Amino acid sequence: MAKEVKLLGFWPSPFAIKPKIALHLKSVDYEYIEETLQSKSDLLLKTNPVYKKIPVLLHHNKPICESLNIDEYIDEAFPSTPSILPAEPYDRAIQRFWAAYIDEWFPTFREVALAQSEEVRAAAIEKVKEGLSLLEDAFVKCSKGKPFFSGDNIGYLDIALGSYLGWLYVYEKLSNINALNKEETPSLLTWAERFSAADAVKDYIPEVDKLMEFAKIIMPRFKAAASN
Amino acid sequence: MAKEVKLLGFWPSPFAIKPKIALHLKSVDYEYIEETLQSKSDLLLKTNPVYKKIPVLLHHNKPICESLNIDEYIDEAFPSTPSILPAEPYDRAIQRFWAAYIDEWFPTFREVALAQSEEVRAAAIEKVKEGLSLLEDAFVKCSKGKPFFSGDNIGYLDIALGSYLGWLYVYEKLSNINALNKEETPSLLTWAERFSAADAVKDYIPEVDKLMEFAKIIMPRFKAAASN
Repeated sequence: MAKEVKLLGFWPSPFAIKPKIALHLKSVDYEYIEETLQSKSDLLLKTNPVYKKIPVLLHHNKPICESLNIDEYIDEAFPSTPSILPAEPYDRAIQRFWAAYIDEWFPTFREVALAQSEEVRAAAIEKVKEGLSLLEDAFVKCSKGKPFFSGDNIGYLDIALGSYLGWLYVYEKLSNINALNKEETPSLLTWAERFSAADAVKDYIPEVDKLMEFAKIIMPRFKAAASN
Repeated sequence: MAKEVKLLGFWPSPFAIKPKIALHLKSVDYEYIEETLQSKSDLLLKTNPVYKKIPVLLHHNKPICESLNIDEYIDEAFPSTPSILPAEPYDRAIQRFWAAYIDEWFPTFREVALAQSEEVRAAAIEKVKEGLSLLEDAFVKCSKGKPFFSGDNIGYLDIALGSYLGWLYVYEKLSNINALNKEETPSLLTWAERFSAADAVKDYIPEVDKLMEFAKIIMPRFKAAASN
Protein backbone atom coordinates (compact mmCIF):
# COMPACT_ATOMS: atom_id res chain seq x y z
CA MET A 1 0.00 0.00 0.00
CA ALA A 2 1.28 3.45 -0.86
CA LYS A 3 2.51 5.38 2.14
CA GLU A 4 0.60 8.50 3.06
CA VAL A 5 3.81 10.51 3.45
CA LYS A 6 6.48 10.82 0.77
CA LEU A 7 9.61 12.90 0.70
CA LEU A 8 11.47 13.99 -2.42
CA GLY A 9 15.08 14.63 -1.56
CA PHE A 10 18.67 14.44 -2.74
CA TRP A 11 21.20 12.92 -0.36
CA PRO A 12 23.82 15.71 -0.20
CA SER A 13 21.25 18.48 0.29
CA PRO A 14 21.07 20.08 3.74
CA PHE A 15 17.56 21.20 2.78
CA ALA A 16 16.45 17.58 2.43
CA ILE A 17 18.11 16.61 5.71
CA LYS A 18 15.85 18.99 7.64
CA PRO A 19 12.60 17.09 6.93
CA LYS A 20 14.37 13.72 7.32
CA ILE A 21 15.31 14.56 10.90
CA ALA A 22 11.91 16.06 11.65
CA LEU A 23 10.11 12.97 10.32
CA HIS A 24 12.43 10.74 12.36
CA LEU A 25 11.74 12.73 15.53
CA LYS A 26 8.00 12.40 14.95
CA SER A 27 8.31 8.65 14.14
CA VAL A 28 6.54 9.20 10.82
CA ASP A 29 6.81 6.31 8.38
CA TYR A 30 7.39 7.61 4.85
CA GLU A 31 8.54 6.72 1.39
CA TYR A 32 11.77 8.44 0.41
CA ILE A 33 12.18 9.32 -3.26
CA GLU A 34 15.71 10.24 -4.31
CA GLU A 35 16.10 12.84 -7.03
CA THR A 36 19.21 12.94 -9.21
CA LEU A 37 21.57 15.71 -10.19
CA GLN A 38 21.04 14.97 -13.89
CA SER A 39 17.37 15.78 -14.35
CA LYS A 40 14.37 16.77 -12.31
CA SER A 41 11.60 14.21 -12.10
CA ASP A 42 8.12 14.91 -13.39
CA LEU A 43 6.90 14.47 -9.85
CA LEU A 44 9.25 17.22 -8.61
CA LEU A 45 8.29 19.61 -11.41
CA LYS A 46 4.62 18.97 -10.77
CA THR A 47 4.76 19.29 -6.99
CA ASN A 48 7.09 22.30 -6.77
CA PRO A 49 6.38 24.24 -9.98
CA VAL A 50 7.49 27.54 -8.41
CA TYR A 51 11.04 26.66 -7.36
CA LYS A 52 11.47 23.20 -8.93
CA LYS A 53 13.63 22.23 -5.95
CA ILE A 54 13.78 19.49 -3.38
CA PRO A 55 12.72 18.88 -0.70
CA VAL A 56 9.03 18.35 -1.31
CA LEU A 57 6.90 16.61 1.27
CA LEU A 58 3.77 14.89 0.01
CA HIS A 59 1.07 14.18 2.56
CA HIS A 60 -1.92 12.38 1.07
CA ASN A 61 -0.44 13.55 -2.25
CA LYS A 62 -0.65 17.22 -1.26
CA PRO A 63 2.73 18.93 -1.66
CA ILE A 64 4.50 21.14 0.87
CA CYS A 65 7.68 22.95 -0.22
CA GLU A 66 10.59 24.81 1.39
CA SER A 67 12.50 22.97 4.07
CA LEU A 68 11.75 25.13 7.12
CA ASN A 69 8.11 25.35 6.09
CA ILE A 70 8.06 21.56 5.81
CA ASP A 71 9.48 21.16 9.32
CA GLU A 72 6.79 23.43 10.74
CA TYR A 73 4.17 21.46 8.83
CA ILE A 74 5.50 18.15 10.17
CA ASP A 75 5.34 19.55 13.69
CA GLU A 76 1.72 20.67 13.25
CA ALA A 77 0.37 17.79 11.15
CA PHE A 78 1.81 15.09 13.42
CA PRO A 79 1.12 16.41 16.88
CA SER A 80 2.69 13.40 18.57
CA THR A 81 5.52 14.21 20.95
CA PRO A 82 8.19 15.45 20.83
CA SER A 83 7.38 18.94 19.62
CA ILE A 84 9.85 20.35 17.12
CA LEU A 85 9.09 24.01 17.76
CA PRO A 86 9.24 25.24 21.38
CA ALA A 87 5.98 25.86 23.22
CA GLU A 88 6.48 29.53 24.11
CA PRO A 89 5.66 32.11 21.39
CA TYR A 90 8.82 34.10 22.10
CA ASP A 91 11.07 31.05 21.91
CA ARG A 92 9.35 30.06 18.67
CA ALA A 93 9.93 33.51 17.18
CA ILE A 94 13.59 33.45 18.16
CA GLN A 95 14.11 29.99 16.64
CA ARG A 96 12.33 31.01 13.41
CA PHE A 97 14.50 34.13 13.21
CA TRP A 98 17.76 32.23 13.51
CA ALA A 99 16.65 29.38 11.25
CA ALA A 100 15.96 31.87 8.45
CA TYR A 101 19.23 33.65 9.23
CA ILE A 102 21.17 30.40 8.84
CA ASP A 103 19.72 29.74 5.37
CA GLU A 104 20.81 33.22 4.34
CA TRP A 105 24.22 33.05 5.96
CA PHE A 106 25.45 29.54 5.16
CA PRO A 107 26.24 30.27 1.47
CA THR A 108 29.06 32.55 2.69
CA PHE A 109 31.03 29.32 3.19
CA ARG A 110 30.75 28.76 -0.55
CA GLU A 111 31.95 32.30 -1.19
CA VAL A 112 35.13 31.47 0.75
CA ALA A 113 35.67 28.30 -1.27
CA LEU A 114 35.12 30.06 -4.60
CA ALA A 115 37.05 33.24 -3.80
CA GLN A 116 39.39 34.21 -6.63
CA SER A 117 41.47 36.69 -4.64
CA GLU A 118 42.83 37.06 -1.13
CA GLU A 119 40.69 40.16 -0.65
CA VAL A 120 37.43 38.41 -1.60
CA ARG A 121 38.41 35.41 0.51
CA ALA A 122 39.14 37.56 3.57
CA ALA A 123 35.81 39.37 3.23
CA ALA A 124 33.94 36.07 2.90
CA ILE A 125 35.74 34.57 5.91
CA GLU A 126 34.72 37.66 7.84
CA LYS A 127 31.06 36.97 7.01
CA VAL A 128 31.43 33.30 7.97
CA LYS A 129 32.98 34.27 11.32
CA GLU A 130 30.37 36.93 12.00
CA GLY A 131 27.61 34.36 11.56
CA LEU A 132 29.38 31.82 13.73
CA SER A 133 29.81 34.39 16.46
CA LEU A 134 26.11 35.33 16.32
CA LEU A 135 25.12 31.67 16.43
CA GLU A 136 27.48 30.91 19.33
CA ASP A 137 25.76 33.70 21.18
CA ALA A 138 22.30 32.50 20.13
CA PHE A 139 23.16 29.00 21.36
CA VAL A 140 24.10 30.26 24.79
CA LYS A 141 20.88 32.28 25.03
CA CYS A 142 18.51 29.66 23.59
CA SER A 143 19.92 26.56 25.29
CA LYS A 144 20.08 28.12 28.77
CA GLY A 145 22.79 25.66 29.81
CA LYS A 146 21.08 22.63 28.28
CA PRO A 147 22.53 20.44 25.51
CA PHE A 148 20.56 21.75 22.52
CA PHE A 149 19.21 25.04 21.16
CA SER A 150 15.81 23.65 22.11
CA GLY A 151 16.87 22.55 25.60
CA ASP A 152 17.02 18.90 26.54
CA ASN A 153 16.03 17.65 23.09
CA ILE A 154 16.73 18.40 19.45
CA GLY A 155 14.29 20.91 18.01
CA TYR A 156 13.65 23.24 15.11
CA LEU A 157 16.76 25.40 15.36
CA ASP A 158 19.02 22.42 16.08
CA ILE A 159 17.77 20.87 12.85
CA ALA A 160 18.06 24.15 10.94
CA LEU A 161 21.76 24.52 11.76
CA GLY A 162 22.67 20.88 12.20
CA SER A 163 21.55 19.91 8.71
CA TYR A 164 24.42 22.00 7.37
CA LEU A 165 27.11 20.34 9.51
CA GLY A 166 28.26 17.89 6.80
CA TRP A 167 28.86 20.76 4.40
CA LEU A 168 30.43 22.86 7.13
CA TYR A 169 33.09 20.16 7.60
CA VAL A 170 33.54 19.90 3.82
CA TYR A 171 34.06 23.64 3.51
CA GLU A 172 36.51 23.58 6.41
CA LYS A 173 38.60 21.12 4.39
CA LEU A 174 38.11 22.75 0.99
CA SER A 175 38.96 26.22 2.28
CA ASN A 176 41.45 25.24 4.95
CA ILE A 177 39.56 27.10 7.66
CA ASN A 178 38.66 26.17 11.19
CA ALA A 179 35.06 27.23 11.50
CA LEU A 180 34.16 25.47 14.72
CA ASN A 181 36.86 25.64 17.35
CA LYS A 182 37.39 25.76 21.10
CA GLU A 183 38.48 29.38 21.17
CA GLU A 184 35.76 31.14 19.18
CA THR A 185 32.80 28.74 19.22
CA PRO A 186 33.22 26.47 22.24
CA SER A 187 29.48 25.91 22.71
CA LEU A 188 28.73 25.26 19.04
CA LEU A 189 31.69 22.87 18.85
CA THR A 190 30.36 20.59 21.57
CA TRP A 191 26.78 21.07 20.37
CA ALA A 192 27.80 19.90 16.88
CA GLU A 193 29.37 16.70 18.23
CA ARG A 194 26.32 16.03 20.39
CA PHE A 195 23.91 16.74 17.54
CA SER A 196 25.72 14.57 14.99
CA ALA A 197 25.79 11.60 17.37
CA ALA A 198 22.09 11.74 18.21
CA ASP A 199 19.90 8.83 17.14
CA ALA A 200 17.51 11.05 15.21
CA VAL A 201 20.37 12.52 13.21
CA LYS A 202 23.25 10.15 12.69
CA ASP A 203 21.80 8.31 9.70
CA TYR A 204 21.01 11.50 7.81
CA ILE A 205 24.19 13.58 7.89
CA PRO A 206 26.26 12.26 4.98
CA GLU A 207 29.86 11.20 5.66
CA VAL A 208 32.36 13.93 4.99
CA ASP A 209 34.37 11.76 2.56
CA LYS A 210 31.28 11.03 0.51
CA LEU A 211 30.31 14.70 0.48
CA MET A 212 33.87 15.62 -0.53
CA GLU A 213 33.56 13.36 -3.57
CA PHE A 214 30.30 15.07 -4.44
CA ALA A 215 31.84 18.50 -3.86
CA LYS A 216 34.44 17.71 -6.54
CA ILE A 217 31.59 17.38 -9.02
CA ILE A 218 29.48 20.28 -7.88
CA MET A 219 32.03 22.97 -6.98
CA PRO A 220 33.25 23.48 -10.57
CA ARG A 221 29.61 24.09 -11.54
CA PHE A 222 29.21 26.65 -8.77
CA LYS A 223 32.46 28.25 -9.93
CA ALA A 224 31.26 28.45 -13.53
CA ALA A 225 27.93 29.90 -12.40
CA ALA A 226 29.66 32.49 -10.20
CA SER A 227 31.86 33.74 -13.05
CA ASN A 228 28.92 34.16 -15.44
CA MET B 1 2.53 53.90 32.13
CA ALA B 2 4.67 52.42 29.39
CA LYS B 3 2.81 50.13 27.05
CA GLU B 4 3.81 46.49 27.07
CA VAL B 5 3.91 46.37 23.26
CA LYS B 6 5.95 48.71 21.10
CA LEU B 7 6.50 48.73 17.38
CA LEU B 8 9.42 50.34 15.58
CA GLY B 9 8.41 51.15 12.03
CA PHE B 10 8.74 53.58 9.15
CA TRP B 11 5.56 54.75 7.44
CA PRO B 12 6.32 53.87 3.79
CA SER B 13 7.63 50.40 4.62
CA PRO B 14 5.44 47.43 3.60
CA PHE B 15 7.36 45.43 6.20
CA ALA B 16 6.12 47.72 8.97
CA ILE B 17 2.56 47.61 7.64
CA LYS B 18 2.39 43.85 8.23
CA PRO B 19 2.62 44.04 12.05
CA LYS B 20 0.40 47.16 12.13
CA ILE B 21 -2.46 45.24 10.52
CA ALA B 22 -1.85 42.14 12.64
CA LEU B 23 -1.88 44.21 15.85
CA HIS B 24 -5.07 45.94 14.72
CA LEU B 25 -6.76 42.61 13.99
CA LYS B 26 -5.82 41.37 17.45
CA SER B 27 -6.93 44.64 19.10
CA VAL B 28 -3.52 45.02 20.73
CA ASP B 29 -2.83 48.44 22.19
CA TYR B 30 0.74 49.51 21.43
CA GLU B 31 3.13 52.40 21.23
CA TYR B 32 4.28 53.16 17.71
CA ILE B 33 7.80 54.50 17.33
CA GLU B 34 8.59 56.03 13.93
CA GLU B 35 12.12 55.63 12.63
CA THR B 36 13.56 58.10 10.13
CA LEU B 37 15.36 57.68 6.83
CA GLN B 38 18.26 59.79 8.06
CA SER B 39 19.66 57.68 10.88
CA LYS B 40 18.84 54.52 12.76
CA SER B 41 17.88 54.98 16.39
CA ASP B 42 19.88 53.45 19.21
CA LEU B 43 16.80 51.43 20.10
CA LEU B 44 16.66 49.95 16.58
CA LEU B 45 20.37 49.12 16.55
CA LYS B 46 20.10 47.54 19.96
CA THR B 47 16.97 45.51 19.28
CA ASN B 48 17.82 44.30 15.76
CA PRO B 49 21.63 44.13 15.78
CA VAL B 50 21.69 41.48 13.03
CA TYR B 51 19.79 43.29 10.26
CA LYS B 52 19.43 46.79 11.77
CA LYS B 53 16.05 47.08 10.06
CA ILE B 54 12.49 47.90 10.98
CA PRO B 55 10.05 46.50 11.91
CA VAL B 56 10.93 45.44 15.42
CA LEU B 57 8.21 44.44 17.83
CA LEU B 58 8.98 44.82 21.52
CA HIS B 59 6.87 42.81 23.93
CA HIS B 60 7.77 43.43 27.56
CA ASN B 61 10.97 44.90 26.06
CA LYS B 62 11.88 41.64 24.35
CA PRO B 63 12.50 42.20 20.63
CA ILE B 64 11.09 40.18 17.73
CA CYS B 65 12.38 40.92 14.22
CA GLU B 66 11.41 40.17 10.61
CA SER B 67 7.90 41.10 9.56
CA LEU B 68 6.41 37.67 8.83
CA ASN B 69 7.99 36.29 11.98
CA ILE B 70 6.45 39.16 13.92
CA ASP B 71 2.99 38.42 12.51
CA GLU B 72 3.27 34.77 13.56
CA TYR B 73 4.39 35.90 17.00
CA ILE B 74 1.46 38.31 17.33
CA ASP B 75 -0.90 35.48 16.39
CA GLU B 76 0.59 33.17 19.01
CA ALA B 77 1.27 35.65 21.82
CA PHE B 78 -2.22 37.20 21.65
CA PRO B 79 -4.48 34.19 21.25
CA SER B 80 -7.62 36.33 21.16
CA THR B 81 -9.75 35.92 18.06
CA PRO B 82 -9.48 36.34 15.16
CA SER B 83 -6.64 33.99 14.29
CA ILE B 84 -4.20 35.36 11.74
CA LEU B 85 -2.90 32.00 10.52
CA PRO B 86 -5.47 29.42 9.40
CA ALA B 87 -6.23 26.50 11.71
CA GLU B 88 -5.35 23.62 9.38
CA PRO B 89 -1.65 22.68 9.13
CA TYR B 90 -1.81 22.36 5.34
CA ASP B 91 -3.44 25.76 4.90
CA ARG B 92 -0.85 27.26 7.23
CA ALA B 93 2.00 25.74 5.21
CA ILE B 94 0.53 27.06 1.94
CA GLN B 95 0.13 30.56 3.37
CA ARG B 96 3.67 30.55 4.76
CA PHE B 97 5.00 29.41 1.39
CA TRP B 98 3.30 32.21 -0.56
CA ALA B 99 4.07 34.87 2.05
CA ALA B 100 7.80 34.08 1.74
CA TYR B 101 7.46 33.97 -2.05
CA ILE B 102 5.93 37.46 -2.09
CA ASP B 103 8.84 38.94 -0.13
CA GLU B 104 11.22 37.42 -2.66
CA TRP B 105 9.19 38.39 -5.72
CA PHE B 106 8.01 41.92 -4.97
CA PRO B 107 11.42 43.57 -5.61
CA THR B 108 11.00 42.64 -9.30
CA PHE B 109 8.71 45.70 -9.49
CA ARG B 110 11.72 47.80 -8.56
CA GLU B 111 13.76 46.10 -11.28
CA VAL B 112 11.19 47.28 -13.81
CA ALA B 113 11.34 50.83 -12.52
CA LEU B 114 15.15 50.91 -12.54
CA ALA B 115 15.66 49.11 -15.86
CA GLN B 116 18.19 50.92 -18.05
CA SER B 117 17.31 49.13 -21.29
CA GLU B 118 14.22 47.77 -23.02
CA GLU B 119 15.63 44.27 -22.75
CA VAL B 120 16.14 44.46 -18.97
CA ARG B 121 12.73 46.08 -18.57
CA ALA B 122 10.99 43.36 -20.59
CA ALA B 123 12.68 40.61 -18.56
CA ALA B 124 11.71 42.29 -15.28
CA ILE B 125 8.10 42.77 -16.44
CA GLU B 126 8.05 39.08 -17.28
CA LYS B 127 9.03 38.25 -13.68
CA VAL B 128 6.41 40.64 -12.30
CA LYS B 129 3.72 39.03 -14.48
CA GLU B 130 4.82 35.51 -13.59
CA GLY B 131 4.43 36.29 -9.90
CA LEU B 132 1.05 37.93 -10.42
CA SER B 133 -0.16 34.91 -12.35
CA LEU B 134 1.01 32.54 -9.61
CA LEU B 135 -0.67 34.69 -6.95
CA GLU B 136 -3.92 34.96 -8.94
CA ASP B 137 -3.91 31.17 -9.01
CA ALA B 138 -3.02 30.93 -5.33
CA PHE B 139 -5.87 33.28 -4.49
CA VAL B 140 -8.41 31.13 -6.29
CA LYS B 141 -7.13 28.01 -4.52
CA CYS B 142 -6.76 29.51 -1.03
CA SER B 143 -9.93 31.61 -0.93
CA LYS B 144 -12.24 28.85 -2.22
CA GLY B 145 -14.73 31.42 -3.46
CA LYS B 146 -14.56 33.58 -0.35
CA PRO B 147 -13.45 37.24 -0.22
CA PHE B 148 -9.93 36.78 1.18
CA PHE B 149 -6.98 34.41 0.89
CA SER B 150 -7.91 33.34 4.41
CA GLY B 151 -11.61 32.94 3.63
CA ASP B 152 -14.19 35.22 5.20
CA ASN B 153 -11.65 37.35 7.05
CA ILE B 154 -8.26 38.92 6.48
CA GLY B 155 -5.42 36.62 7.52
CA TYR B 156 -1.69 36.05 7.24
CA LEU B 157 -1.39 35.81 3.45
CA ASP B 158 -3.79 38.71 2.88
CA ILE B 159 -1.55 40.83 5.07
CA ALA B 160 1.63 39.51 3.43
CA LEU B 161 0.52 40.60 -0.05
CA GLY B 162 -1.76 43.47 0.90
CA SER B 163 0.97 45.37 2.73
CA TYR B 164 2.68 45.86 -0.64
CA LEU B 165 -0.40 47.32 -2.38
CA GLY B 166 0.59 50.96 -1.88
CA TRP B 167 3.94 50.33 -3.55
CA LEU B 168 2.33 48.21 -6.24
CA TYR B 169 0.21 51.21 -7.25
CA VAL B 170 3.28 53.47 -7.11
CA TYR B 171 5.25 51.12 -9.36
CA GLU B 172 2.31 50.93 -11.77
CA LYS B 173 2.56 54.71 -12.14
CA LEU B 174 6.35 54.94 -12.15
CA SER B 175 6.74 52.19 -14.73
CA ASN B 176 3.57 52.79 -16.69
CA ILE B 177 2.43 49.19 -16.27
CA ASN B 178 -0.94 47.74 -15.42
CA ALA B 179 -0.09 45.07 -12.86
CA LEU B 180 -3.60 44.36 -11.57
CA ASN B 181 -6.23 44.25 -14.29
CA LYS B 182 -9.49 42.57 -15.20
CA GLU B 183 -8.02 40.40 -17.92
CA GLU B 184 -5.01 38.81 -16.21
CA THR B 185 -5.71 39.13 -12.49
CA PRO B 186 -9.49 39.51 -12.06
CA SER B 187 -9.55 37.90 -8.61
CA LEU B 188 -6.56 39.83 -7.24
CA LEU B 189 -8.00 43.08 -8.60
CA THR B 190 -11.23 42.76 -6.63
CA TRP B 191 -9.41 41.30 -3.63
CA ALA B 192 -7.09 44.37 -3.57
CA GLU B 193 -10.03 46.78 -3.49
CA ARG B 194 -11.74 44.77 -0.78
CA PHE B 195 -8.54 44.49 1.28
CA SER B 196 -7.65 48.20 1.06
CA ALA B 197 -11.13 49.22 2.19
CA ALA B 198 -11.20 46.93 5.23
CA ASP B 199 -11.32 48.55 8.67
CA ALA B 200 -8.20 46.74 9.87
CA VAL B 201 -6.23 47.99 6.89
CA LYS B 202 -7.35 51.37 5.60
CA ASP B 203 -5.43 53.47 8.10
CA TYR B 204 -2.14 51.70 7.42
CA ILE B 205 -1.75 51.65 3.63
CA PRO B 206 -0.19 55.03 2.81
CA GLU B 207 -1.85 57.18 0.14
CA VAL B 208 -0.38 56.70 -3.30
CA ASP B 209 0.39 60.43 -3.71
CA LYS B 210 2.31 60.48 -0.44
CA LEU B 211 4.23 57.36 -1.41
CA MET B 212 4.98 58.88 -4.83
CA GLU B 213 6.57 61.87 -3.10
CA PHE B 214 8.67 59.50 -1.02
CA ALA B 215 9.54 57.45 -4.13
CA LYS B 216 11.06 60.58 -5.69
CA ILE B 217 13.51 60.69 -2.79
CA ILE B 218 14.25 56.99 -2.52
CA MET B 219 14.33 55.80 -6.14
CA PRO B 220 17.49 57.76 -7.05
CA ARG B 221 19.19 56.06 -4.09
CA PHE B 222 18.09 52.63 -5.32
CA LYS B 223 19.33 53.59 -8.78
CA ALA B 224 22.73 54.62 -7.46
CA ALA B 225 22.97 51.43 -5.41
CA ALA B 226 22.02 49.27 -8.43
CA SER B 227 24.70 50.80 -10.61
CA ASN B 228 27.46 50.30 -8.03
